[in-house]
Amino acid sequence: MGSTQREARALTEWLAAFETALGNNDVDAVSALFADDCYWRDLVVFTWNIKTLEGRDSIRDMLGAMLGNVRPHDFTIDGEATELEGVVEGWFTFNTGVAHAQGHVRLINGKAWTLLTAITDLVDHPEATGHHRPLGTVHRIEPERPNWLERQKEHQARLGHSEQPYCVIVGGGQAGIALAARLKQLDVPTLVVERNERAGDSWRNRYRSLCLHDPVWYDHLPYIRFPENWPVFTPKDKMGDWLEMYTKVMELDYWSATECKSAQYDETREEWRVDVEFTGDGERQTHTLRPKHLIMATGALGMPNVPEIPGASDFNGTLHHSSEHPGGQGYAGKRCIVLGANNSAHDIAADLWANGADVTMIQRSSTHVVKSDSFCELSLGALYSQEATENGLDVDQADMLFASTPYAVLPQMAGGMGALLRERDADFYERLEQTGFVLDFGGDDTGLLMKALRRGGGYYIDVGASELLIEGKIGLRSRVSIDHIKSDSVVLTDGEELPADVIILATGYGSMNNFAAELISQEVADRVGKCWGLGSDTPKDPGPWEGELRNMWKPTQQPGLWFHSGNLHLSRHYSRYLALQLKARMEGIDTPVYGIPEVHHLE
Amino acid sequence: MGSTQREARALTEWLAAFETALGNNDVDAVSALFADDCYWRDLVVFTWNIKTLEGRDSIRDMLGAMLGNVRPHDFTIDGEATELEGVVEGWFTFNTGVAHAQGHVRLINGKAWTLLTAITDLVDHPEATGHHRPLGTVHRIEPERPNWLERQKEHQARLGHSEQPYCVIVGGGQAGIALAARLKQLDVPTLVVERNERAGDSWRNRYRSLCLHDPVWYDHLPYIRFPENWPVFTPKDKMGDWLEMYTKVMELDYWSATECKSAQYDETREEWRVDVEFTGDGERQTHTLRPKHLIMATGALGMPNVPEIPGASDFNGTLHHSSEHPGGQGYAGKRCIVLGANNSAHDIAADLWANGADVTMIQRSSTHVVKSDSFCELSLGALYSQEATENGLDVDQADMLFASTPYAVLPQMAGGMGALLRERDADFYERLEQTGFVLDFGGDDTGLLMKALRRGGGYYIDVGASELLIEGKIGLRSRVSIDHIKSDSVVLTDGEELPADVIILATGYGSMNNFAAELISQEVADRVGKCWGLGSDTPKDPGPWEGELRNMWKPTQQPGLWFHSGNLHLSRHYSRYLALQLKARMEGIDTPVYGIPEVHHLE
Repeated sequence: MGSTQREARALTEWLAAFETALGNNDVDAVSALFADDCYWRDLVVFTWNIKTLEGRDSIRDMLGAMLGNVRPHDFTIDGEATELEGVVEGWFTFNTGVAHAQGHVRLINGKAWTLLTAITDLVDHPEATGHHRPLGTVHRIEPERPNWLERQKEHQARLGHSEQPYCVIVGGGQAGIALAARLKQLDVPTLVVERNERAGDSWRNRYRSLCLHDPVWYDHLPYIRFPENWPVFTPKDKMGDWLEMYTKVMELDYWSATECKSAQYDETREEWRVDVEFTGDGERQTHTLRPKHLIMATGALGMPNVPEIPGASDFNGTLHHSSEHPGGQGYAGKRCIVLGANNSAHDIAADLWANGADVTMIQRSSTHVVKSDSFCELSLGALYSQEATENGLDVDQADMLFASTPYAVLPQMAGGMGALLRERDADFYERLEQTGFVLDFGGDDTGLLMKALRRGGGYYIDVGASELLIEGKIGLRSRVSIDHIKSDSVVLTDGEELPADVIILATGYGSMNNFAAELISQEVADRVGKCWGLGSDTPKDPGPWEGELRNMWKPTQQPGLWFHSGNLHLSRHYSRYLALQLKARMEGIDTPVYGIPEVHHLE
Repeated sequence: MGSTQREARALTEWLAAFETALGNNDVDAVSALFADDCYWRDLVVFTWNIKTLEGRDSIRDMLGAMLGNVRPHDFTIDGEATELEGVVEGWFTFNTGVAHAQGHVRLINGKAWTLLTAITDLVDHPEATGHHRPLGTVHRIEPERPNWLERQKEHQARLGHSEQPYCVIVGGGQAGIALAARLKQLDVPTLVVERNERAGDSWRNRYRSLCLHDPVWYDHLPYIRFPENWPVFTPKDKMGDWLEMYTKVMELDYWSATECKSAQYDETREEWRVDVEFTGDGERQTHTLRPKHLIMATGALGMPNVPEIPGASDFNGTLHHSSEHPGGQGYAGKRCIVLGANNSAHDIAADLWANGADVTMIQRSSTHVVKSDSFCELSLGALYSQEATENGLDVDQADMLFASTPYAVLPQMAGGMGALLRERDADFYERLEQTGFVLDFGGDDTGLLMKALRRGGGYYIDVGASELLIEGKIGLRSRVSIDHIKSDSVVLTDGEELPADVIILATGYGSMNNFAAELISQEVADRVGKCWGLGSDTPKDPGPWEGELRNMWKPTQQPGLWFHSGNLHLSRHYSRYLALQLKARMEGIDTPVYGIPEVHHLE
């Protein structure tokens, strides 16, 4: 890498031509600046949507529909162009009629292979940060001016009561909290509704031994970075405390111990009626909120998948879904069957074993297993690591770099990950396969990140459970499932019968629109359709190809309904785009949306 | 500014000669590298002290005593040399036998005018941050391994009970908290003892309208920066919440609602016996701690100065020191006399006025008044501002730059500040003087920072009260004091009698060693002598010249007794050096101290 005059000129010339063609409203000239194989990923600049246009025709169609409204101008190169294996890339900034924006382009032979355009902020409505931060005081003494604490209390007494929030976020985990923090800086009145007692309980309530599987550099929230003494893998209770601190320090309007019971959209008033329930004055009370927008932030995944297994009702022992599993304490000496072989199944099996239970894992289909340090180094290290931080790569820049690769191109970037892992951890995989464990490395050898994007699961980041399988401390049955359940045993599909006191169904989760069905109606859930996944036509991610994650952080087929989730990385980064979409609507900025996808799958 | 080859060479040559001379133990050759007018400020590298050596003879004496022990080597230039008005300056790093260190030099004609050497960390005992941060989990499943929360609880139950802390910090305000955070990363068992109910109460309990007078960029704590949305001037309750959050998130061992009653040093065991009192099981309990080191972090200033005024006992109204003032609420309609004209006096007078009281301020001697925005811009802006931050100047670097100027040189850097202010805010000062208010700009025109270092007071950062004086909303009597008090009035030294319901003595504070007298003994307080001040022979800072702040963050005449305080800037920066001195002692590293000053003043 490194920039030479030749690369710098290639970038300068392309950007000048791009600006000129856009300025002339010359859609053909713009599309002629793209290669045959080309992608334009737009995050809320040209499309008021999160959209990847693939191929020149798609680009031409989008510009024909949208360009007249956007007025892109003031393109300026930001930093130096770099070159690697014939691909010249570089960053730039520009403005539209209403927004500041950022861009990234990859050029091959002077034509754009990939282009990213991403909104930074709204020109007339900047975030209250940096130069726009509040003064905190007024340097003028006035009689009886309320102080910060008094104003905060007054605000809390008002919002949701005499003043309606513009947004209600259902779910106050990391995703809801990150979005609420973004909206706060944009002065969008927002209430977070969380059923747990305290912010952070969604982590605290999980099984005892849990630590985050992603490393600290990948996990920052917006605005406040984890300090330099933070552990690489955050223990769950420490994460809970951090989220609770964050909620308070960022002054979020956060109603904990409050359950969202139902929501209905009033088409005429263009607002939601949201009924929530909490305990006040010693009794259960219902309270109605009337926000313009409803954001589902109810977890990275949807409702639990609970398979119906014949005989389950005859079982004398304990049977529950992994989401209801309290942790391994109290299971000493119990014969436990864990159905499933992904992250939760491994974590729960290991925790049960550590607590003295007798555990057998039932693996129905192949799993991608990657050792934690290999994952951190090979998949995240370039962007999210101590080294990257010390090289001056801020997490916001890392997020933009990550976002600059279109989803259609990611598999080719991630290709060969399986081969790399198999070589690096050959002995580990060999020993694991000797137990009968069935491995995969993503259908097309692309590893964990693609599996996460396509289906939100299907993998285990090994933090020790694989060794327990290898040593035989956790039993394993592979390529089978539970055929039926008897009063004190399970019978597998190959006929084997295993005695059982406890059955845990680590059978995953459905789509987030399940929550919309529960809270709003099946009709609305079906109208918006399946959430997450790219349409990759790989297991659990049926086609057709969509090019972006379904329904995430962008307008859906239901006005006023939005979905926000993802791991800490995705909910940190995309909360920015969702917040700016909501702010633009609140301010009455014209936000014509290009290409809300058709719904192909109901869940 | 900017670096040319000539400057780079000057720095390289000087540093090479310095390293060679040190390596040869050639004290004369080292001192020959300094100019006639020269200063070497050492922060715990050569002297195991905080010490400025002034002149070649002092440097030669110090090296003669200490160099044999230090083994400085591996000098490496860090960044680019710069030049301004004939002064070439630059940064470098080096190592000693036990420490990593940083240096900064200013050269005139190839000789050192100023040199800073500062410890960074101990080679064998790095902070648990960055590459040394904890993993947070063990990637190996073990039966019954306690999780983070369980380990934290077990640690809390043990420290101060079955395990004695190595350090006890008396006072859990910002200074105590910052030091405890540093010691935590160095794995030095430390207990903070705070009499208030909750961390942060030292701010929350102050008067209602208080906001920090220093701007946010100047106020960061170690490790966690205030986020970009933080107000410029932090409201007191928000500051309280931040400190409470910090204490929790940094996992400090913090005993709130605990009062330190007495402390005695056992010379034989070389440890303290510290008696603390708290409420447990519904009754007041005394508990004894036995730390090796006792750190007084009881506030930036000492005990309240309460002048004895004839007739005070006959007063029918309310009379109290500013430190006991509850705020202006409840004083509506009361005739209030505020004795004093510095920060507290102004803040309290303004708050009383805002609450409807009738207020008169009695100004006994001149005050340095500076408008808040002028102070932020002229005194702090270059190092601590939004612009400095956006230019990439981290607060740790800013602190080092600030520290690189010896105290003896600071007045010449700050000289002319008064003239600058008088020009910038001419109209303001003219109107203020028309009220009879007596202004100064520091004895030698050096303004606020020097006053703060010399005497810890004597100024008002104007956030609005001056306008109330100008408008006559707050009454003023200048160049007088209270001669005596009658049952419902005060009689001034010029004979005027003012009716009074309330008298507030905003008469400042004594030296921190007052607290040692109260807690330990008058004998120990007298042995360590006055704290703070430079010996500048200006009002309230008597000579002889000391060159460093008396007794702050460095060894005192009493083994095991340390003083830690200062505003947020100083307690942030110098907590690093105090923590490393304590860690070195805990690890049994040889720490010969050079030149603990004689005591010239008892308070």
